[in-house]
Amino acid sequence: MSNVLKLGLPKGSLQESTFELFKKAGWAIKPTSRSYYPNVNDPELQITLVRAQEMARYIEDKVLDAGLTGSDWVLESGCKVRHVADLVYAKQGMRKVRWVLAVPESSKIKSVKDLKGKRVATELVNVTKKWLKEHKVKADVEFSWGATEAKPPELADAIVELTETGSSLKANHLKIIDTVLESNTVVIANTAALDDPWKKEKLNNLILLLQGALNAETKVGLKMNVMKSRLRNVLLVLPALQTPTVAELSNPDWVDVDTIVDEKVVRDIVPKLTKAGAKGIVEYPLNKLIY
Amino acid sequence: MSNVLKLGLPKGSLQESTFELFKKAGWAIKPTSRSYYPNVNDPELQITLVRAQEMARYIEDKVLDAGLTGSDWVLESGCKVRHVADLVYAKQGMRKVRWVLAVPESSKIKSVKDLKGKRVATELVNVTKKWLKEHKVKADVEFSWGATEAKPPELADAIVELTETGSSLKANHLKIIDTVLESNTVVIANTAALDDPWKKEKLNNLILLLQGALNAETKVGLKMNVMKSRLRNVLLVLPALQTPTVAELSNPDWVDVDTIVDEKVVRDIVPKLTKAGAKGIVEYPLNKLIY
Amino acid sequence: MSNVLKLGLPKGSLQESTFELFKKAGWAIKPTSRSYYPNVNDPELQITLVRAQEMARYIEDKVLDAGLTGSDWVLESGCKVRHVADLVYAKQGMRKVRWVLAVPESSKIKSVKDLKGKRVATELVNVTKKWLKEHKVKADVEFSWGATEAKPPELADAIVELTETGSSLKANHLKIIDTVLESNTVVIANTAALDDPWKKEKLNNLILLLQGALNAETKVGLKMNVMKSRLRNVLLVLPALQTPTVAELSNPDWVDVDTIVDEKVVRDIVPKLTKAGAKGIVEYPLNKLIY
Amino acid sequence: MSNVLKLGLPKGSLQESTFELFKKAGWAIKPTSRSYYPNVNDPELQITLVRAQEMARYIEDKVLDAGLTGSDWVLESGCKVRHVADLVYAKQGMRKVRWVLAVPESSKIKSVKDLKGKRVATELVNVTKKWLKEHKVKADVEFSWGATEAKPPELADAIVELTETGSSLKANHLKIIDTVLESNTVVIANTAALDDPWKKEKLNNLILLLQGALNAETKVGLKMNVMKSRLRNVLLVLPALQTPTVAELSNPDWVDVDTIVDEKVVRDIVPKLTKAGAKGIVEYPLNKLIY
Amino acid sequence: MSNVLKLGLPKGSLQESTFELFKKAGWAIKPTSRSYYPNVNDPELQITLVRAQEMARYIEDKVLDAGLTGSDWVLESGCKVRHVADLVYAKQGMRKVRWVLAVPESSKIKSVKDLKGKRVATELVNVTKKWLKEHKVKADVEFSWGATEAKPPELADAIVELTETGSSLKANHLKIIDTVLESNTVVIANTAALDDPWKKEKLNNLILLLQGALNAETKVGLKMNVMKSRLRNVLLVLPALQTPTVAELSNPDWVDVDTIVDEKVVRDIVPKLTKAGAKGIVEYPLNKLIY
Amino acid sequence: MSNVLKLGLPKGSLQESTFELFKKAGWAIKPTSRSYYPNVNDPELQITLVRAQEMARYIEDKVLDAGLTGSDWVLESGCKVRHVADLVYAKQGMRKVRWVLAVPESSKIKSVKDLKGKRVATELVNVTKKWLKEHKVKADVEFSWGATEAKPPELADAIVELTETGSSLKANHLKIIDTVLESNTVVIANTAALDDPWKKEKLNNLILLLQGALNAETKVGLKMNVMKSRLRNVLLVLPALQTPTVAELSNPDWVDVDTIVDEKVVRDIVPKLTKAGAKGIVEYPLNKLIY
Repeated sequence: MSNVLKLGLPKGSLQESTFELFKKAGWAIKPTSRSYYPNVNDPELQITLVRAQEMARYIEDKVLDAGLTGSDWVLESGCKVRHVADLVYAKQGMRKVRWVLAVPESSKIKSVKDLKGKRVATELVNVTKKWLKEHKVKADVEFSWGATEAKPPELADAIVELTETGSSLKANHLKIIDTVLESNTVVIANTAALDDPWKKEKLNNLILLLQGALNAETKVGLKMNVMKSRLRNVLLVLPALQTPTVAELSNPDWVDVDTIVDEKVVRDIVPKLTKAGAKGIVEYPLNKLIY
Repeated sequence: MSNVLKLGLPKGSLQESTFELFKKAGWAIKPTSRSYYPNVNDPELQITLVRAQEMARYIEDKVLDAGLTGSDWVLESGCKVRHVADLVYAKQGMRKVRWVLAVPESSKIKSVKDLKGKRVATELVNVTKKWLKEHKVKADVEFSWGATEAKPPELADAIVELTETGSSLKANHLKIIDTVLESNTVVIANTAALDDPWKKEKLNNLILLLQGALNAETKVGLKMNVMKSRLRNVLLVLPALQTPTVAELSNPDWVDVDTIVDEKVVRDIVPKLTKAGAKGIVEYPLNKLIY
Repeated sequence: MSNVLKLGLPKGSLQESTFELFKKAGWAIKPTSRSYYPNVNDPELQITLVRAQEMARYIEDKVLDAGLTGSDWVLESGCKVRHVADLVYAKQGMRKVRWVLAVPESSKIKSVKDLKGKRVATELVNVTKKWLKEHKVKADVEFSWGATEAKPPELADAIVELTETGSSLKANHLKIIDTVLESNTVVIANTAALDDPWKKEKLNNLILLLQGALNAETKVGLKMNVMKSRLRNVLLVLPALQTPTVAELSNPDWVDVDTIVDEKVVRDIVPKLTKAGAKGIVEYPLNKLIY
Repeated sequence: MSNVLKLGLPKGSLQESTFELFKKAGWAIKPTSRSYYPNVNDPELQITLVRAQEMARYIEDKVLDAGLTGSDWVLESGCKVRHVADLVYAKQGMRKVRWVLAVPESSKIKSVKDLKGKRVATELVNVTKKWLKEHKVKADVEFSWGATEAKPPELADAIVELTETGSSLKANHLKIIDTVLESNTVVIANTAALDDPWKKEKLNNLILLLQGALNAETKVGLKMNVMKSRLRNVLLVLPALQTPTVAELSNPDWVDVDTIVDEKVVRDIVPKLTKAGAKGIVEYPLNKLIY
Repeated sequence: MSNVLKLGLPKGSLQESTFELFKKAGWAIKPTSRSYYPNVNDPELQITLVRAQEMARYIEDKVLDAGLTGSDWVLESGCKVRHVADLVYAKQGMRKVRWVLAVPESSKIKSVKDLKGKRVATELVNVTKKWLKEHKVKADVEFSWGATEAKPPELADAIVELTETGSSLKANHLKIIDTVLESNTVVIANTAALDDPWKKEKLNNLILLLQGALNAETKVGLKMNVMKSRLRNVLLVLPALQTPTVAELSNPDWVDVDTIVDEKVVRDIVPKLTKAGAKGIVEYPLNKLIY
Repeated sequence: MSNVLKLGLPKGSLQESTFELFKKAGWAIKPTSRSYYPNVNDPELQITLVRAQEMARYIEDKVLDAGLTGSDWVLESGCKVRHVADLVYAKQGMRKVRWVLAVPESSKIKSVKDLKGKRVATELVNVTKKWLKEHKVKADVEFSWGATEAKPPELADAIVELTETGSSLKANHLKIIDTVLESNTVVIANTAALDDPWKKEKLNNLILLLQGALNAETKVGLKMNVMKSRLRNVLLVLPALQTPTVAELSNPDWVDVDTIVDEKVVRDIVPKLTKAGAKGIVEYPLNKLIY
């Protein structure tokens, strides 16, 4: 069936933010009575919800054409799949996450070298073992069924655990002593799917819109009126993210300047823009931004 | 009192989406201690919440000037009122709803003809009887006090029931075998109100804004920069919904193209626009759109 | 530490709307394990949550540089602090609040003069005593620990109480017979902070953005296409809030008119704009507006 | 199928308290995917949820053998069914409910006689018409689709409406001027079912346990130690609801008195019991009480 | 009006547990439209909800006859009222609460003596000042409008704060260094009320039942069958709280032993009872227990 | 530390019902800031929350003395621990749970024999492999990270999954074709702990009370007055669960009969008891029952 792309999306903690991202990109995903096979308003897509840990396995086996999952679980699985794109978002925000080595605040373990002979609990057993081997450290790596951050010191000497903000580790009185792996959401596919021109283009168009929606989350539009004589000053303040659009107005002495900036710089450049002579500065929201 | 329009709004399942629509159009409706006579921030409007089934009766009797309700209940009531406008929205989305004839999945009833001598449960008794008469079928039509979809096969042989998505029928193992009536939200008024020029204009202005808010729900703005040499290609991709606004830029080789499109086509035309040469494509949200 | 502004924000009923306003202005405030010392994504700001009643005291004592609180509590405290700006917002909307003198609907007390010898319950004891003195009335002013509006007539003859909409007073069968004080949110600071040029500019820039976010809450953008021949008619309809931006289009007979208006006037001017010849009227939302 | 009793239970406002009552009586009712045909842990019972208004109709038609509903809706339906037992409970408590004639507090209508020529809105059209006829009053009785209490004075002159506590009427500024009908929950059945000895006994046993559970809701156990010399005094204080159980103790001077009393009298008799010489008074809860 | 007892109950954090206690004692308190003057199902009681801090003042002024509040606020108020009974319960359990002196975990303040010249924040200003005076320490005691536990070290050097479990203090990294006051719920009244025989008896009966309900919360019934030959062993295990009731059985070799014990000792004595020869041990719940 | 029993309790789906059971038995477990090491009101117990899957491992390693978990996970782990007691309860009720082999309703797989060469997904990999081996079937058993019931037919041919009621399987259109393992909650311990007399008795006493609380959940007390002449008839109706206690009354013609029965038989025996001559039958609740 070459007119349908079988796409896996991650079930669980990433699911809600993934559905929201697809909605912003233009695809509405709705639950059905078979809750792991949701409907999507695009007959060319067939979506399966799969645990992030199992995504690579099902794509390698060609049960699915492509999917979104964390690069950590792709590595852990050891499966052979192709990396197509990075989509940097996560449960709590637009950033990478880290698997870190953490120990109790009062532990004598200061670095990976001190792990020799110790018990390390983690859900990422294979990656952790490989990393310890690279550091030439022999330790007992145990698979943890969850609640890993609560185990030290009674049930484990150290853990390798995922963290976005570190707050859960801190709440359990653990400190981070090393980073084992950085991870972000990736789009992966198998070679067979990428060799099918229709599937490849479908996947690329999907990524173009997902990326456009992701861009819009951290950007805003900024427009203002500027006297031509002060235009140069104003343009110097604006970041070089994109060439601003300068439009002629009926009043020949003034122009309209319209541009896209990172939302987080607005609070810094607005005071500078007013000093440089911008009038009637308007910040407006975006839905999508495709460079 | 010619300076106040007495307007009925539907109490119940449509109420929340109706209030939201009025809010978007510019009228904030707030609950009072008399919960069915809410306040509205417009001294020229007096709002009464009335069950959809009773709306036409109170407008015919001139207790109210005009109101919003479903066209199904206008027909069921048999009241004489004037149809002023259609507003296509419903509880779960922007579309028409249907009253359908449904029977158990395993029923031998295949079409309206098989209803002869059967028990049909419905809340829409008059319309159903008239429809059966047109099909020359004699059946026992019983008024149902609710939960109609759960009645077959024990308590009824067939039902005539409202459906937006069909999911409630499916959950009760019923299948649709015919459509009795399509319905959507309408604005109705009595002749006396429409003969009063002030009331007529007030009602028309209100509808203009409600329609403008409804338009905005399914449309977005799309703007982009285009080299003049590629403008024609880009314009060919854009739907003919409205003539795009093409604005001169300070850089005489480029123009700014700004247009309104259906949100649902964006995911299809963005890849084409990038191929045609559009740069910095921005999708932005709308509050209202009045053609 | 001259590179950090120590800013107090009001804990309690104003807290949520204050955090939202800061978010719109560009500062994300997040709870920490010490919930009254939240994090903010700006190393130049250090935020402390303080009860509105205590804000002026801590600023006068230089524990804090500046803060947001109600002008009522500044007055009540009797502390010496400098008024820097007004930010007109409150719990339920963008407006001032009032401390009013209220009595039971059936009370014989008709004006402040009738309070002689009566029991007045209030949380604003100092301001109330001063106000009574100005009116040359001797009454027994008692500090109320809360639930003041429920006290008359059993526990007090009259109360001086805060009200935004009057609905809580009405629900307790009280009537307002005078206004003791109008109040709104203010930014206050101590002289030492204002004498530090860095702190003064930091505070002013913060206020500029807060004001910009506040402006955007009640304004929208409105743009439309107009034939040049009808431009004058259209411009006459638009409020004089700001000079509209009139941009040239590729089609030399038409212009694009883009302006900012109060959201609440849109429903009134849209019908007039269509009559005056505006086409494709689009209302769009704003994030910030800095004049 | 003579070994199954087909029992209708009221869907809607009475449903939750009915399920709780059955649970206390020993029957656990659980939802199924067909939500109106719940499971019950008794193969001899088959439960169907039916609107209270429709119960009598389905029992008369022998679709069901028996059912619980309000005596009001039995009367309104005009159906021929047999009254088997009263079960006095309702949504908010263990008492009868009333259908009352209510008018606006400021209405000139003072009694049923003043209704001549007026509009009366009600859900209980047949009973109301019959009642007016008995009072020889001609009025326009309109079927109301709900929210009846909000209709006067704009949409109706008077209403006939169900009330347990009167609070909803008061909140709508209505006053009660007459009682049209008292109603309570009843068990009804058709003659065919009552002529089947198995069904009749099954139904009677069910009622015995339901009544036992109802009794327990308002009763408690009370036991105490009493010196024989003071026993007579103590017994005089106890209500004559049931003969107390007086048990011999090892200590021959004392007896143990154990009895069942209305929970609401406990606060009154406990002080009297202590004065009469009761020691170690214990109040304990009951699950069921069958006289 | 000598047949009504005007009783104040504490509004706020104690309110819910107070209402529950009254319900168990036999008085159902229900909200009304005037929410601080709830209904109670006893025409001889008139309940007013008053802040715990203001209770003593209104009783001293004879606005109320009697009331429940904390002994801390009685002391703080300095009002002259009579102590009638202790009712040991609090928000989170059946125990006394404490006002403690707390400082940051890292503070150099080790005892009350170190407070000289420091800032102490508290809601209990008068009691704290008196306590400091008794310890001959001069410190600056500031009234705190709430959130006191979050103030140190920035806004106060030490605090005097209420604690039941200490968990809120610990969460704010404070340590307790002294106890300023122990407090529990008390019943207070004014002399005039206690001099009225009807009011005095009414209040005493109320307290009898409240105390009976409180007793039942921490006690359970325990009954068992015992061979007469082993009765002595079994009785030795039972706590001396109350003489057990020993009842003759039809089988003359056995007796039934029924007693009341603290719930918290059951887990310790049950193993001993089985060893001592008790059979069929049953623990059952109590509603009230009046010694 | 021989005076503390280190006890593991299952974190996750069984946690809430386990805590409730301990509460009924007399131990209150409260969360702390280290949420997996809760407090318990018994200094002789130290509780650690551990995933059911990991319990046996930590007990075998002597990190814990004893623990509650499912017998399924003990078997899956392959660890050497001692079985001390069965406690038959589970998430939704007092019964065993089953791991079943399930396939799509339309699958051709009819029995374990048809699994040859198929993909079986399960969380219970070791038990499943052993069971297939016993049936001499070679299949591909894959570890499933969850949501197993949604996998067939796309992602697996069959699953081995836990079920209490079968409703989740039915909702996924799966049918059960075999039972792989029955499981219930067990108390396990290591030999070292059982060899310590103090720990052994502590654990046995704990189990005695837990079992006493479990018994009480499905049993009730039933007492009644009976004329001596009809006592034999009444006793014949009562189940032989326990010898009823027959107590002499002051009235020598009557006795009081008090017994414990399964709650579920009450509805059947009450009608028989009334026929046999029992009067004033009272059913009352139990907290604990120790035979």
